[in-house]
Amino acid sequence: MTTRTLKLGANLNGVGNSVSFWRHPDIPGDASVDIEFYKKQARIAEEGKFDLLFIADGLYINEKSNPHFLNRFEPLTLLSALTGATSHIGLVATLSTSYSEPFTVARQFASLDHLSRGRAGWNVVTSPLEGSALNFGKGGHPQHALRYEIAEEHLEVVKGLWDSWEDDAFVRDKASGVFFDPAKLHTLHHKGKHFSVQGPLNIARSRQGHPVIFQAGSSEPGKELAAKSADAVYSGHETFEEARQFYADVKARAAAHGRRPEDILIFPGIGPIVGSTEEEAERKYLEIAELVDIHQALNYLGRYFDHFDFSQFPLDEPFPDIGDLGSNSFRSTTDKIKREAREQGLTLRETAQRASTPRSHFIGTPEQVADQIQKWFEGGAADGFNVRTVVPDGLADFVDHVVPILQRRGLFRTEYESDTLRGNLGLKVPQNRYTLQPENV
Amino acid sequence: MTTRTLKLGANLNGVGNSVSFWRHPDIPGDASVDIEFYKKQARIAEEGKFDLLFIADGLYINEKSNPHFLNRFEPLTLLSALTGATSHIGLVATLSTSYSEPFTVARQFASLDHLSRGRAGWNVVTSPLEGSALNFGKGGHPQHALRYEIAEEHLEVVKGLWDSWEDDAFVRDKASGVFFDPAKLHTLHHKGKHFSVQGPLNIARSRQGHPVIFQAGSSEPGKELAAKSADAVYSGHETFEEARQFYADVKARAAAHGRRPEDILIFPGIGPIVGSTEEEAERKYLEIAELVDIHQALNYLGRYFDHFDFSQFPLDEPFPDIGDLGSNSFRSTTDKIKREAREQGLTLRETAQRASTPRSHFIGTPEQVADQIQKWFEGGAADGFNVRTVVPDGLADFVDHVVPILQRRGLFRTEYESDTLRGNLGLKVPQNRYTLQPENV
Repeated sequence: MTTRTLKLGANLNGVGNSVSFWRHPDIPGDASVDIEFYKKQARIAEEGKFDLLFIADGLYINEKSNPHFLNRFEPLTLLSALTGATSHIGLVATLSTSYSEPFTVARQFASLDHLSRGRAGWNVVTSPLEGSALNFGKGGHPQHALRYEIAEEHLEVVKGLWDSWEDDAFVRDKASGVFFDPAKLHTLHHKGKHFSVQGPLNIARSRQGHPVIFQAGSSEPGKELAAKSADAVYSGHETFEEARQFYADVKARAAAHGRRPEDILIFPGIGPIVGSTEEEAERKYLEIAELVDIHQALNYLGRYFDHFDFSQFPLDEPFPDIGDLGSNSFRSTTDKIKREAREQGLTLRETAQRASTPRSHFIGTPEQVADQIQKWFEGGAADGFNVRTVVPDGLADFVDHVVPILQRRGLFRTEYESDTLRGNLGLKVPQNRYTLQPENV
Repeated sequence: MTTRTLKLGANLNGVGNSVSFWRHPDIPGDASVDIEFYKKQARIAEEGKFDLLFIADGLYINEKSNPHFLNRFEPLTLLSALTGATSHIGLVATLSTSYSEPFTVARQFASLDHLSRGRAGWNVVTSPLEGSALNFGKGGHPQHALRYEIAEEHLEVVKGLWDSWEDDAFVRDKASGVFFDPAKLHTLHHKGKHFSVQGPLNIARSRQGHPVIFQAGSSEPGKELAAKSADAVYSGHETFEEARQFYADVKARAAAHGRRPEDILIFPGIGPIVGSTEEEAERKYLEIAELVDIHQALNYLGRYFDHFDFSQFPLDEPFPDIGDLGSNSFRSTTDKIKREAREQGLTLRETAQRASTPRSHFIGTPEQVADQIQKWFEGGAADGFNVRTVVPDGLADFVDHVVPILQRRGLFRTEYESDTLRGNLGLKVPQNRYTLQPENV
């Protein structure tokens, strides 16, 4: 068995997921639609030998949406544009199965896979936002369980279309005039509950067979879909213990489907903040947290507590005693807020800041952040991490200061093993379904 | 009024539209999925100061499809990948309104438009192939008139979504924390016969306002749609007289919609063959025509004549007298074949070759091809041409030998006027519908 090594993704998101990150003087306000900004981030990640770039997505906005969501690139076109600016890093785009056609999805991802010579990945989501249905003329947003039923069939159709051509189907013999071998062309003829798709697809498989399948839901059906059909999972757990439980759960479910632990990789999302000292890292966090107007932050905090008005209390004194307030609404969140404030002696201002600008658990000196990563990786909570930028130059700081430590510890590569995404992730090239031996079908 | 100048598009199509072009030793057999091949062609076109790259498309294949159609890039991902390899040339992708969602189409083209900083175009088609329906789970392929009704509404929705944000909506004032002006965000609320789309779109307008709209159908509803809504038309007429009539027809229809002649540009497709002498050009044509097996070519010819068996006649003697045969099937085609054979003294072999490999009317020395172009351009048959590659290095030959003549004659630019597609085509930036004065609404 080869040594298990850490995987890293860079979650690129322009002006960021928070409401106020764009206000920082070092963040270009139009970063979400600036291809030069994305090219620069992509090159930093590739210099850092990251496995992949990851682009999140959504299909509905209104005037209350966060800045990045209002005006951003569409993921497939963005990653296609990045193919020429990169050479080894994987390119993973989010796309919803609830509002797309399997033929188009199979085709665009296969095309990205050829354009990048085997570096494409698809993060399969089902669109959590109700409003999405309004943009696609549907009667209504499908309920959660139905969305996952659709997703499962959609993904099966896409994978089937990707196998339309056997790898050696294209003979291209100029002398005889034989372009392809008709015996190696397969027509899917799918007729299911939600989709009816004949095929074949009008593009071949790439060097990695299928684009890598990510899945990003943590619900029961999300975990089942991942365990059955995904190569990797993007998860959102904040604590080691939650992440460890999720990791064990998904790996066990995958085993029940006859899959090996290394066939499905778990990538918690993290937003590391690195400073030369703990204090510097903390200052970087505060610089971002303070971009949120304090009244906005108090409002944000109040929403968890039945819209309680916190502005009646002094900002820089300990978080006030509000008794049972909030226990009837977002109880787990309000309990956690109260506990942290008490245990860490936070002021009202600090508590409101943390509520509106989540403070990463991966914060501190490069060694401290590397220690956390190693703990999660070796402790059964992660195979890799999807690294979000939450402070200016957050990705460059991570690449310059944390990656070298991980490399010295033998946890992370110093050179790419491959120039396909599957190759770097250590994932098998899926065999074409039409070439499987009968006993394996 | 400024001088009217010629426009040029390069129709890039990998191993070509014909059945046997790929067999030529100078054509890479995998050109249709080789991004380096496309990058090279794109650079040649940009060196030649072409206005745009044009990517045709289709949504259905079977084992009888031409090689290029079987295994090719998807247009939007391909053109996104070419954004970084080019700087001034327009990027026009074909996409069908019969099998796509307006929200996704609006978004992907707008994203390409931002990635290219204002060089995107959409060639609106309705999918002529019946089989397309089978890949998209539809009950059946919509009839012609219905397809155009859908296309018109689809295009209206897309244009409406493109206007979601006024050009100065994004304030991005870091000091005050105002990212956008809510008064300049517009929600479409479209509820029509075929589509129901709320909006707004999650991406702004680019520098050229809307991507340039091409339309490629020559039927009555196709011409009407173009006259009403398109910026440019890609047409397929072979003779000057047919092209002239079509040109006059579309311009008259546009005038009836209150548009000026220069608001809609007509681009006949041509496949020029250039040689240093007429004989060399003719040899280049024959080199391609002879790649089609002569038995295949005879069969192809016979299909027009009720599957008549031409193999009973000697190949290198004059086209045989077959009386009225064929007058009951493809009459205009069979009459033309007989007339050309008689008038030009063609042999059976030559006639079969021309049937299976259409011989361009734009063939000869650079001067002769330039003369033809000038005649069509000045004679009211074309505003520009969409140049297909039909012989190896056909695009480079055109750029090296024909473009300089057109430039010397003052017909074609020597430098780009703009770095947006609209700028180079001399088309107005469409005003945002939400900023029109009431009397213009």
